[in-house]
Amino acid sequence: MDEFELIRKLTTGLSANDAVVTGPGDDCAVLDLGVPDRQFLFKTDAVVEGIHFRSDTPPEQIGHKALARCLSDVAAMAGSPIAALITIGLPKNFDPERVASIYRGMRPIADKFHVAIVGGETTTNPDRVFISIALLGWVPRDKAALRSGAKTGDAIFVSGELGGSLAGKHLAVEPRIAEARWLADHFRIHSMIDLSDGLAGDLRHILQRSGVGAELLASSIPISRAARLAAKATSSAKPPLLAALTDGEDFELLFTLPSRSAVSLLDGWKKQFPGVKLTCVGKIVSGEGITLREKHGARKLSAHGYVHFA
Amino acid sequence: MDEFELIRKLTTGLSANDAVVTGPGDDCAVLDLGVPDRQFLFKTDAVVEGIHFRSDTPPEQIGHKALARCLSDVAAMAGSPIAALITIGLPKNFDPERVASIYRGMRPIADKFHVAIVGGETTTNPDRVFISIALLGWVPRDKAALRSGAKTGDAIFVSGELGGSLAGKHLAVEPRIAEARWLADHFRIHSMIDLSDGLAGDLRHILQRSGVGAELLASSIPISRAARLAAKATSSAKPPLLAALTDGEDFELLFTLPSRSAVSLLDGWKKQFPGVKLTCVGKIVSGEGITLREKHGARKLSAHGYVHFA
Repeated sequence: MDEFELIRKLTTGLSANDAVVTGPGDDCAVLDLGVPDRQFLFKTDAVVEGIHFRSDTPPEQIGHKALARCLSDVAAMAGSPIAALITIGLPKNFDPERVASIYRGMRPIADKFHVAIVGGETTTNPDRVFISIALLGWVPRDKAALRSGAKTGDAIFVSGELGGSLAGKHLAVEPRIAEARWLADHFRIHSMIDLSDGLAGDLRHILQRSGVGAELLASSIPISRAARLAAKATSSAKPPLLAALTDGEDFELLFTLPSRSAVSLLDGWKKQFPGVKLTCVGKIVSGEGITLREKHGARKLSAHGYVHFA
Repeated sequence: MDEFELIRKLTTGLSANDAVVTGPGDDCAVLDLGVPDRQFLFKTDAVVEGIHFRSDTPPEQIGHKALARCLSDVAAMAGSPIAALITIGLPKNFDPERVASIYRGMRPIADKFHVAIVGGETTTNPDRVFISIALLGWVPRDKAALRSGAKTGDAIFVSGELGGSLAGKHLAVEPRIAEARWLADHFRIHSMIDLSDGLAGDLRHILQRSGVGAELLASSIPISRAARLAAKATSSAKPPLLAALTDGEDFELLFTLPSRSAVSLLDGWKKQFPGVKLTCVGKIVSGEGITLREKHGARKLSAHGYVHFA
């Protein structure tokens, strides 16, 4: 059983109440707390030493990454953050200065996106640092961009460039909050997610929740320089296209909208966010799964995107 | 540097915004989200294998304890819970059935207190199970019971019986949500906290935040049967009074209110909650720290309550 099956199993038939607009299974939960023009977003995200960062990662970068990942989930709903709580599990005798540096690393990004850090807990995790961040955000009522709204004929867009995040970008995540708010304000976004598991894996989340399939055009996928460099560095490295499809932790936006909006979207985006690439990588089709179109034909991507990739 | 000093250091000068009513340093953060008659409570709490439960603790009890502790913090603010997110860090190859049982253990208490479980994350924590729960709750506007409002002359009350929680009660935490709401509805509670670090330690949090001192009457402290039994079982066990003052994880309510309300409080409580003891254990005085009055005089409790206890 993989992580996604496990979560599906765990979150089936859970306790619910009238406040729940969208429960488990999207980037954030959506709650109705009684504010006429707003709904609220609720999310937690954890980073663990040895998994998401190394024991020699500079502590400020750990702090930045921990908070930025969680903010990226708020962006994926087209929301804005309000407040965060920081839980840190620490080995005994952990240097307090290092913990303070982790907190310090959160500060610039918290200030940039006006997130109040309203508390925290330190507890014991004897073997490694474990950081869990809880985030509360908001979105204009009924404007949350869900994973479940993709429709046949939608164009599929992705921000930034993909793959090779492990070379450094994963520590310097830039949550696309302004971009996502602008998208939701100006276009009818049918579905959106942030890229944490890789384009193939995260697109599949949208397809499953929406009951549709997708065709990706291999030549249009924006491959990062880091992915190309990594492919050249060692013969055992992933080919760049595979890296762009399957590397995790890009934290870019992946979204779909009616294809008739594609041109005005690209025009408007270029004016608004000249420093951030936006690319149409394919379209939503009926059926299920992902078909990759290449020069010499098309092939179906396997369930996990990478398992049987040639 | 102990946990409390560390948290004080970490949470000084953190990012804030207009939504923050009460930031770090109380049982929950208090947020104003724009609802006229309500404010919102935000809290996380973690339990870790080998620290808060054992590897052979039945998984349902782990789930119950994890959620109940967090609910107890909402009770300490006189609030009601709305929604929770569950983060579980797991060793590789952890039995999914056992994880499902942890979730199952949360269900009865979530249903009892109408908490929606709106999502979760499983991640990797290679060496032990780590569970962090994020909770959102609410309280009538300006009715949150803080730690900071204790006043000279207040009577100090505690619910239930104290000490010896490790014998079993720590796994069967009963959050005092109904009791706390009733208190806030019927009395002017000056300060409140839930007992996680022991009566002496948690009373000290109230005293420090309120800038006052306290006198406890040793003979009035409600010592649990478990603490008495533990003291008899081994010669090295804490004396029962010391256990009641310093054992952690009682998760009872500790609060102060004007002493003139004491009699009507005790009368009303007995009618409302006949199964839960309520005891006046002392009073708030000017100055600082805790004085313990015993038959043969009075002595000051040391900074950590237990370090120099005879």
